[in-house]
Amino acid sequence: MPVQPAFSVPSIPFILFLAALLAGPVGYAQEAPATRPPNVIVVFADDLGYGDLGVFGHPTIRTPNLDRMALEGQKWTQFYAAASVCTPSRAGLMTGRLPIRSGMASSVNRVLFPDSHGGLPASEVTLAEQLKAAGYATGMVGKWHLGHQPEYLPVNHGFDDYFGIPYSNDMDLTRKLTAASGYWELWTREYKNLTPADFNVPLIRDTEVVERPADQRTLTRRYTEEAIRWVRDHKEGPFFMYLAHNLPHVPLFASEDFLGSSRRGLYGDVVEEIDHGMGLLLEMLREEGLDQNTIVVFTSDNGPWLPTEISGGTAGMLREGKGTTWEGGMREPTIFWGPAYVRPGVVMEMGSTMDLLPTFSAMAGVPLPQDRILDGVDLTPVLAGNGKSARNTMFYYRGSELYAVRLGPFKAHFITEAGYRRDTREEHGIPLLFNVEEDPSERFNIAEAHPEVLEAIRKLTAEHRAKMVRKPDQLKDRG
Amino acid sequence: MPVQPAFSVPSIPFILFLAALLAGPVGYAQEAPATRPPNVIVVFADDLGYGDLGVFGHPTIRTPNLDRMALEGQKWTQFYAAASVCTPSRAGLMTGRLPIRSGMASSVNRVLFPDSHGGLPASEVTLAEQLKAAGYATGMVGKWHLGHQPEYLPVNHGFDDYFGIPYSNDMDLTRKLTAASGYWELWTREYKNLTPADFNVPLIRDTEVVERPADQRTLTRRYTEEAIRWVRDHKEGPFFMYLAHNLPHVPLFASEDFLGSSRRGLYGDVVEEIDHGMGLLLEMLREEGLDQNTIVVFTSDNGPWLPTEISGGTAGMLREGKGTTWEGGMREPTIFWGPAYVRPGVVMEMGSTMDLLPTFSAMAGVPLPQDRILDGVDLTPVLAGNGKSARNTMFYYRGSELYAVRLGPFKAHFITEAGYRRDTREEHGIPLLFNVEEDPSERFNIAEAHPEVLEAIRKLTAEHRAKMVRKPDQLKDRG
Repeated sequence: MPVQPAFSVPSIPFILFLAALLAGPVGYAQEAPATRPPNVIVVFADDLGYGDLGVFGHPTIRTPNLDRMALEGQKWTQFYAAASVCTPSRAGLMTGRLPIRSGMASSVNRVLFPDSHGGLPASEVTLAEQLKAAGYATGMVGKWHLGHQPEYLPVNHGFDDYFGIPYSNDMDLTRKLTAASGYWELWTREYKNLTPADFNVPLIRDTEVVERPADQRTLTRRYTEEAIRWVRDHKEGPFFMYLAHNLPHVPLFASEDFLGSSRRGLYGDVVEEIDHGMGLLLEMLREEGLDQNTIVVFTSDNGPWLPTEISGGTAGMLREGKGTTWEGGMREPTIFWGPAYVRPGVVMEMGSTMDLLPTFSAMAGVPLPQDRILDGVDLTPVLAGNGKSARNTMFYYRGSELYAVRLGPFKAHFITEAGYRRDTREEHGIPLLFNVEEDPSERFNIAEAHPEVLEAIRKLTAEHRAKMVRKPDQLKDRG
Repeated sequence: MPVQPAFSVPSIPFILFLAALLAGPVGYAQEAPATRPPNVIVVFADDLGYGDLGVFGHPTIRTPNLDRMALEGQKWTQFYAAASVCTPSRAGLMTGRLPIRSGMASSVNRVLFPDSHGGLPASEVTLAEQLKAAGYATGMVGKWHLGHQPEYLPVNHGFDDYFGIPYSNDMDLTRKLTAASGYWELWTREYKNLTPADFNVPLIRDTEVVERPADQRTLTRRYTEEAIRWVRDHKEGPFFMYLAHNLPHVPLFASEDFLGSSRRGLYGDVVEEIDHGMGLLLEMLREEGLDQNTIVVFTSDNGPWLPTEISGGTAGMLREGKGTTWEGGMREPTIFWGPAYVRPGVVMEMGSTMDLLPTFSAMAGVPLPQDRILDGVDLTPVLAGNGKSARNTMFYYRGSELYAVRLGPFKAHFITEAGYRRDTREEHGIPLLFNVEEDPSERFNIAEAHPEVLEAIRKLTAEHRAKMVRKPDQLKDRG
């Protein structure tokens, strides 16, 4: 167990980095983004809440590496996942489109399960395929969850290499639940007794199962090592690495070095191990001289899974969590880093994981597909410090249903529902309306005072619905 | 109105500062705190919530100066006010003692009002008196709230100079409330229509009223200017400046330059103006070469006043707010800064405003009063990066009653109550028990699982009660 320091101290390399900013002709973009296609690394956490990093306000989880990354880069405070649960969120990131368009959002099942038949259709163009078209090497490490049948695996969606688990780490449970204990009780009361052997999750390399059950205690460490090795092997670039940790989704496991490292308990241990891996990754980029031509993003797939109680994270001051269309379900703690491409600062503009495909496509100089609607926008000007975000709206779907719409600072909820209890579903004849910038916790309904805003959002929503084209539901068939 | 930047960017002086850390023999303490008595500046906000600064997680309040101060200094994540409302909290800071000991916590009135007779007894030794004994010049700017009768004013409690208001900015209301609207409705529905003329709050210099009603729109700016002028006038040192802003307590007012500056509305404008003042103050210290022999603390008197709705702040993920003994009522966003005395980092040790008197007394080399019990501890080793905090307990009083006790990470609630509704008061036969480090939001009662912790807290509490000596209630007499 690492000794718990009373402090985390800015490191000497960090100070050197800032000194270099001063001394040199500065590396990062002043007037326009750098034109050289950057290497791209996307690090994706699983069920990490908006409030679970130090720099996003957590009092007892120590994340010095992500804090530093935010300081050297951009901390985005209004950045959204494409959905509030795993499968559709990941589909949105990979395609730059609302998951409903690709058939990856369903009214029957919220995500893919081990007995599901479907997956991301081959007709979708992924971020990996986009960058591959620009000559990138493409590698993925971690949780995929866009179809585990062979034709849907990452290597059939634009990735040269893959190492990871195909769905969530709580699936394929082999342990019998006692009659008295339901799903949530398992996590809240029994999780400390669960072992990796209670799950039958496969670990896959490319298309081969190389370990089953995967030893989940060491996955975070092995993912980080694998990603670092892969980047070193492709350092001539350009490369795209998608590192999707399957934690801190329950069941929580940390490697021995991190068990007990955090004041926040096992959940904190797990987040601190992910933070540590982030530090190793950035350190390697510096060592290899890749820091000046690489852009790194850290974000998460959805908000904290609140019913898992102490095993779940926190959305901080945001309302609710995973599975819901409240802010806590879809707004993510997001950091962009890359001295040559990202002007340091706190960014309060809107962004989404769906914007990564257009943004990195622009940076790589590869045209966007013209035969389909994309929901992402190019964030390059904001990253370079040259302007406002082109994103002014968010459409919050739950499954295949549109629950809420944001326009500027205003968000209208047509339907609300808690993350885990269907009986809390409520349809609102007059939508609830919040100004989520003035009222980030969505406490004060201002619908009565702002009929003109509701009208504008109704109009926007009608246009959105009229243009919606959706592929067949990929999640419904099981067994 | 200042142009709203898309970014806040680390400034060149900040980068120079970090470069200087690298280049020089570094200025801050390595093995032991600097022995030269530091100049001391305490900046105190009013009703600012734990979650209301950028670096403490607020998504839409921009506080680049406080963020930078936290980065260059120490961000404390478990730092407590002495009480959950103004008067007793300020008494605790000034005396290093629980307010119940000085008679400044009452079962009748929670704070002093314009018709109150009492104040901080002359027999109390204040932080100003301690530092004066060590040869410091002592000045105070802002809200006092420890007695407005002449004998209780700051100049009779160890301060050479005083400029500010004697009690809260919402007192002395001259506007008639309509029959339909109570106190809270005034703030939530009518605050936008209130003007400084609706209050009769006096602005005092030393003991003279110089403006009545005080023009509250410009107070934050004038307080900052006054504090900067006073420090410049005493720059030969050593000096102690106590700058106690009376905002963001309702009614909210910002100067013209800040109206509309924030995405968070008027509350955000007000906090951003305080942040701006903090930046001016630190910049002046650098300009005057005082940055290497001054230590600055920023904190707040209590948590956010939640019933004032959109006019109140947020405690982030902490439970409840002002007036309560939940964490949101008394844990404050706290920053220590001073390159020669404070080793940069995130500090998760416990601290309290009551610790400032012992800490600064130690730094100034002045002995503590030996004829009374102090509740504060010397935080010097933690500031210097040399060890753990001597504080391992907190006693959470509401008025004159002990509601909760913290021992290490565990907190037992004997009584709980919301901030503003007496009918929510509940006495717990078996106290509620939370691990506030693992469960910062106080969601999961673990009393059943940890009888040994409850027993230890019961023993600690019995000892505390047995040794308690209290002065007569100073708040009860009014009219």
